[in-house]
Amino acid sequence: MVCEWPGGTGPLGEERLRALLADLPEPWLLGNEGPETFSPFDNLGHLIDGEETDWIPRARLILAQGPSVRFEPYDRFRHRGRNAGRTLQSLQSEFEKLRLANLELLRSWQLTAAQLELRGEHPALGPVTLRELLAAWVAHDLGHVAQVARVMAKQYAHEVGPWLPFLPVLTDRPSPGPSAS
Amino acid sequence: MVCEWPGGTGPLGEERLRALLADLPEPWLLGNEGPETFSPFDNLGHLIDGEETDWIPRARLILAQGPSVRFEPYDRFRHRGRNAGRTLQSLQSEFEKLRLANLELLRSWQLTAAQLELRGEHPALGPVTLRELLAAWVAHDLGHVAQVARVMAKQYAHEVGPWLPFLPVLTDRPSPGPSAS
Repeated sequence: MVCEWPGGTGPLGEERLRALLADLPEPWLLGNEGPETFSPFDNLGHLIDGEETDWIPRARLILAQGPSVRFEPYDRFRHRGRNAGRTLQSLQSEFEKLRLANLELLRSWQLTAAQLELRGEHPALGPVTLRELLAAWVAHDLGHVAQVARVMAKQYAHEVGPWLPFLPVLTDRPSPGPSAS
Repeated sequence: MVCEWPGGTGPLGEERLRALLADLPEPWLLGNEGPETFSPFDNLGHLIDGEETDWIPRARLILAQGPSVRFEPYDRFRHRGRNAGRTLQSLQSEFEKLRLANLELLRSWQLTAAQLELRGEHPALGPVTLRELLAAWVAHDLGHVAQVARVMAKQYAHEVGPWLPFLPVLTDRPSPGPSAS
């Protein structure tokens, strides 16, 4: 389905995350799931890092097919230092600007089937195609939308009384898992 | 935090789900995670059932404190028959109408701390307070927003190549779990 989103911005639309976070007070935005886990604010910062340092820069590298097609590792915690003291609103504006520009650039490339099969080298995963990179961008995004909703739900774990064991979103734990996005 | 959402509709805003699903073609809306799991379309139908048969009807029952405060069981699959042949757009409009009316009603009650401690009887969970019911409404909603994003991500599980094991949202499975929402 990659690159076949009719009109609009498809599942990568930056307005989806804005709607999820719009007008919420701080406790909803800064709560997390425990030490070393991401709050909604962190998720947004992480997505900004992806726009600036991951998906499109890697796509460029693949398309250029220069002497090295090896990607820079993606720093999953770059946002922590970068965004200290920022407001959620300013991060939202920044994310939307970056995402829109990246989607425009992506569309302007008018990628061919052959280009989608070009390869780069992921520092941990080895060879990957441009098609897989773009699909991973979409899935990564949706994973963080799911995470934002899940983390917000967790803030109510102590409020729901006997419903707790019947709302899986409150009792699952994020598995730290490997970090090679 | 229940009932302290300043302005707007807080995390229960129906526009959040609309933004997540807006302008997406059918494969994104009808895909699921396997037999007996919910697609985004099903999630929306299930949330409509909640508006019509669960949260507010139960809140009314608690507030009335009549001879019986026992809730009707919540049919998690009511939507399957109810919405056959419907479009996502018509479900969205219906959900928004129901949700808005329910939030207006909730606000109009101007619930007191004492009322929030009134109890009803859940058919499976036993005694629950109005406060817990309203919190469960919020958490249940966010759980389904997370599910919608997760199920959409799953549709790309075969597209991401070597990224698969590094995107947990693609490999987790929804635990069927007990159904007592």
